[in-house]
Amino acid sequence: MPRTVDRDRRRDELVAATGRLILDEGLAAVTLRRVAEVTGFANGAVKPYFPTKDELLHATCRQAFERAEARVATAVDGTTGLEALRRQWVELLPLDDERRLEARVVTAFWEAATQDRAVAALFAGHHERCRTRMYQHLREGRARGEVRTAESDETVVDEALWLLVGLRASVALGGDAITPRRQRMLVEKLLEHLTVPPR
Amino acid sequence: MPRTVDRDRRRDELVAATGRLILDEGLAAVTLRRVAEVTGFANGAVKPYFPTKDELLHATCRQAFERAEARVATAVDGTTGLEALRRQWVELLPLDDERRLEARVVTAFWEAATQDRAVAALFAGHHERCRTRMYQHLREGRARGEVRTAESDETVVDEALWLLVGLRASVALGGDAITPRRQRMLVEKLLEHLTVPPR
Repeated sequence: MPRTVDRDRRRDELVAATGRLILDEGLAAVTLRRVAEVTGFANGAVKPYFPTKDELLHATCRQAFERAEARVATAVDGTTGLEALRRQWVELLPLDDERRLEARVVTAFWEAATQDRAVAALFAGHHERCRTRMYQHLREGRARGEVRTAESDETVVDEALWLLVGLRASVALGGDAITPRRQRMLVEKLLEHLTVPPR
Repeated sequence: MPRTVDRDRRRDELVAATGRLILDEGLAAVTLRRVAEVTGFANGAVKPYFPTKDELLHATCRQAFERAEARVATAVDGTTGLEALRRQWVELLPLDDERRLEARVVTAFWEAATQDRAVAALFAGHHERCRTRMYQHLREGRARGEVRTAESDETVVDEALWLLVGLRASVALGGDAITPRRQRMLVEKLLEHLTVPPR
């Protein structure tokens, strides 16, 4: 097995352990030493992969966004227009354990985004790619006559994006988070608005 | 001047300084020593007011929510129904410097809410009070025939609350945050949906 495969696997393992540490003990608990500890590696074994704590944290935040986007791409594959929007939006909801954990990791980085340009850029990039996909599927939906709303694409995209961000943030509150049933209903209502012709 | 007034003023000063520290240097930079430093007090002068860092942080988070709720109460005063909802929702938007700073302080505590039950309870309490007010004004609006949507009050409240949370979180991204004009448009669109009678 080539050496780079081992390296990639080790990196993934360290990033996954960092995500779990963030969930269990909070972002402040993450140190290279602590990540070595929970993965059973020797002290200093993390440095060849992530020379600094910031690099490890950035990789963890980036991976959460990349995973969400990869899941969206798979879910949407082969669909267009309204159905593609539905699949994208549902996929970004914190509906199950995997997606709730991902949402919690991402939410943990909101504060870092106010202090750290690199983290802010990761958020901005993710939101930009989400927006680009929404605009594309709205265009497809309008071309096929499925999307008939008088609202501008810009308003539709803003509403969907920031509602989804709010719902992902809601899971950080644990017990008080909005239920999966109500999350799905909100997405269906957003989609329904799109089909209403101008009065 | 009674001693308690001095004490209250000093507490407010320390909480305000903590908010500024969070904005300028991040939540992790807050220590009792650092807050004493930036307020020009002697080391140890903070302890009589806030014996622990957690108490100071909780007071800072609580104050941000209390201020937002007090502003909403003032803005809504004397109105009911749809107009009261409009004023509440606009007041919770991060439209100007004061409200953007408040939104950034609150956003900084999202990660803490995942780790600290007391912080989670502050968020849950704020959201519950926001919801209660929304339900009240929706009832008033339905009674007067202004609110005609077929959507349940629960769906309307979920959508508004989590969109507003998402918009407040968006300001943490700084330059990429949604503009005040677009924020206001989203609130107007939400209100417009409420006036649409069932098809």
